[in-house]
Amino acid sequence: MPDPVNVYEIGSPEFNAFFKRMRERADAGGSPTGDVNSRLLARVRESGDSELTQFAQQLFEGLHPYAEATVERILDLVARQGDVALTQLTRVFDGYPLTSATIRVSQKDLDALAQKADPELLDVCRRDVLPRLMRFHERQRQESWQLEERGGSVGIRVQPLQRVALYVPGGKAFYPSSLMMAAVPAKVAGVKEIAVFTPPGALEQTPLLAALLKELGISEVYRLGGAQAIAAAAFGTEKVARVDKIVGPGSEFVALAKRMVFGRVDIDNVAGPSEVVVLFDGSANAAWVAADMLAQAEHDELAAAVGVTDSAEAAQAVVAELAKQLASLPREATARRSLQNFGGIVVAPSMGFGIRFADTLAPEHLEILTEQAEQHAAQVKNAGAIFVGPYAPEAFGDYCAGPNHVLPTVGTARFASALSVGDFLRQVSIIRGSAELLAANRQTILKLARAEGLEAHARSVELRS
Amino acid sequence: MPDPVNVYEIGSPEFNAFFKRMRERADAGGSPTGDVNSRLLARVRESGDSELTQFAQQLFEGLHPYAEATVERILDLVARQGDVALTQLTRVFDGYPLTSATIRVSQKDLDALAQKADPELLDVCRRDVLPRLMRFHERQRQESWQLEERGGSVGIRVQPLQRVALYVPGGKAFYPSSLMMAAVPAKVAGVKEIAVFTPPGALEQTPLLAALLKELGISEVYRLGGAQAIAAAAFGTEKVARVDKIVGPGSEFVALAKRMVFGRVDIDNVAGPSEVVVLFDGSANAAWVAADMLAQAEHDELAAAVGVTDSAEAAQAVVAELAKQLASLPREATARRSLQNFGGIVVAPSMGFGIRFADTLAPEHLEILTEQAEQHAAQVKNAGAIFVGPYAPEAFGDYCAGPNHVLPTVGTARFASALSVGDFLRQVSIIRGSAELLAANRQTILKLARAEGLEAHARSVELRS
Repeated sequence: MPDPVNVYEIGSPEFNAFFKRMRERADAGGSPTGDVNSRLLARVRESGDSELTQFAQQLFEGLHPYAEATVERILDLVARQGDVALTQLTRVFDGYPLTSATIRVSQKDLDALAQKADPELLDVCRRDVLPRLMRFHERQRQESWQLEERGGSVGIRVQPLQRVALYVPGGKAFYPSSLMMAAVPAKVAGVKEIAVFTPPGALEQTPLLAALLKELGISEVYRLGGAQAIAAAAFGTEKVARVDKIVGPGSEFVALAKRMVFGRVDIDNVAGPSEVVVLFDGSANAAWVAADMLAQAEHDELAAAVGVTDSAEAAQAVVAELAKQLASLPREATARRSLQNFGGIVVAPSMGFGIRFADTLAPEHLEILTEQAEQHAAQVKNAGAIFVGPYAPEAFGDYCAGPNHVLPTVGTARFASALSVGDFLRQVSIIRGSAELLAANRQTILKLARAEGLEAHARSVELRS
Repeated sequence: MPDPVNVYEIGSPEFNAFFKRMRERADAGGSPTGDVNSRLLARVRESGDSELTQFAQQLFEGLHPYAEATVERILDLVARQGDVALTQLTRVFDGYPLTSATIRVSQKDLDALAQKADPELLDVCRRDVLPRLMRFHERQRQESWQLEERGGSVGIRVQPLQRVALYVPGGKAFYPSSLMMAAVPAKVAGVKEIAVFTPPGALEQTPLLAALLKELGISEVYRLGGAQAIAAAAFGTEKVARVDKIVGPGSEFVALAKRMVFGRVDIDNVAGPSEVVVLFDGSANAAWVAADMLAQAEHDELAAAVGVTDSAEAAQAVVAELAKQLASLPREATARRSLQNFGGIVVAPSMGFGIRFADTLAPEHLEILTEQAEQHAAQVKNAGAIFVGPYAPEAFGDYCAGPNHVLPTVGTARFASALSVGDFLRQVSIIRGSAELLAANRQTILKLARAEGLEAHARSVELRS
């Protein structure tokens, strides 16, 4: 069997090709829908529902075979037809008989489902995970402040957002940890209205979701998934009040819809595929390095697990460990493809070189398993989260270390940060005037306003003196 | 002469139509380019430059007559052809003979231009404005922190962005105050590389720009405007290193380009037209209310100046003052059209009603000239900046009160805040492990990882015990 991952020497032609592939990974666009649309339309026709067939024809008519086009059409339908579009779209895409009466999940249904959650798992979340997340995020609270001066003052009033949507994907894509990571900062910020959107059937399939929502004090839940959920949250309909911000991961349709409604509402970053860079030297335990790379590679085929080292020998030891550990992994096939696509071990002439290479990738997760882990961490410029030392595997941060696991992906750590309490707060500027304070600044304002040709600005101050 | 502004009673059909117009103002899209493209092409042909003519034909070939299409084409050309596209696009759109050698402004040119600035104006900026802005923004600095636990720790390391672009519009659109408002938070955050992009000729037309840049310690300046400037900043070319974030206002092309490159780089909010809501009661000086509305209306025809009051009498007094003050205003025509388009005085049954109406607009600026200004300010939910009391005209905040005048427009104050030091910082999560800390969390991680079907995550922790 060939090695599960390639080893590249920095600067070699193979390394350059690998580097190019990593950069292009960030630019992947929306994908063709193929014949999905015609299959969906055929399924609707077979159902014999003439109203729904008419709707589906309108939906798919003249549509370009790209995901973007479908998402644009969905947004437009929800904006114009409200709940009618929501129920029909859910019938078409989810095959679920949604009515305007069942768009929102009743409290009774939520309570009944919450009862069915695995009590041991719920207990771990309630006793261990949530308190650790709360403690970390409470440290991110922000205080209002003001600077007083001549009877007036200037300052910042910190306020929570009024109303936010959490998108929670359904089925196998539902991760209890992701729900907690999105909800905790919103709760700590003091957001009063938190509305959850999740595809129909998701609650029934994963009762833990209902139990966690109850634990978090969230009771407004909609049976809506995909682009139609994002449209409902952004525009509002008869049954769904529009929100101020939408957070949470989802399918390609969800990601595209979030990007399109951005500006009308706020969104968290559009989540790309996940990645880890593991910096290691000869002192690192090769089995641990390999295990951490596999924990990333098992996510999906687009995940990237990259080792970076100054030791060719250590690199080979990790390759051998990867081969060994892969053999017994339940998600072996996914992990293998991920390693082939975007995996690699890069051998650099020094750790300094290696860190500069890692900086160009600006990885979501950066682990440092080197003898001088602290010094190396201090040199890193671009990373979403840094895991320092051998006892900080990414999985610790994924679940319960405390920091948020919603992190900037595919190089956006150059400018973006983890989801935080600040994402759910606003800073309102407060300017309190006084006759004395205004008089002290009068000449400055007049001079600048007139230099900018804004005479009415100048007069609004002149009148007051 | 008819009244310069309408008075609406809340709930009346006229009010409802006004309210609808205000909401639609937020949704204005890209505009048709009309025959601009063919006129530009004709101008290039007349120049007799065959290379440029060929480029312009490629640029405009088969282009849909909408601004979006032109901007998409410009981005694509710069991404593929780099500096060649930059110089040719500048020749086409700005009619300026840019070469790859003159894309960047030399230090000698900058110094010579700085000498020509109006010394009195520069002095006001240096002695009064910049120190006030610095003092306010320094209060926004953020500290790194960590929580220690069982030999490990979790925390946040605060880091400035590496490299940002400030876009500075040219000619009449250049406002010295806007340059200071964009540069000060970047400097306070500690951004090392600040690159300025401004259309060719802008520095020559406004030498104060060069002098302010010198004062701010910024020496990397490019003769690039429009969508090509944004493309250069976002993608990088031979002469321009790509940045991590782009801030600053610009033309429609600039706004569209910023929106399109968002995700690849960060951007500040896409600036929409400006607005003010003035809350006033019978105690307010009608002349001051009118002057503040005019200071907004003089900006441009899309600016919105809205008065909100509980007194029909006070409303009429403001209408009379508007008519009187308009007559002598240099930008009377613009202010009149703005008041006709999006101006109005809304009479509410109580100030409480009025405040709730203001909240639905979520205005960029909210002034409160009422007897109980403090209490009313406390009730406001959505506003970019609140100006409390009769001696806090918006113009004070526009120039030198301290808070940033780059504020969320057209209703985005529901979820967005003023430009701040935080916009130029990143929060990197730091997780330091220890054998004891990991062991204490082992069972929690294993339980959750296996519930999520991520066996490799579980094993990465198990291996370490």
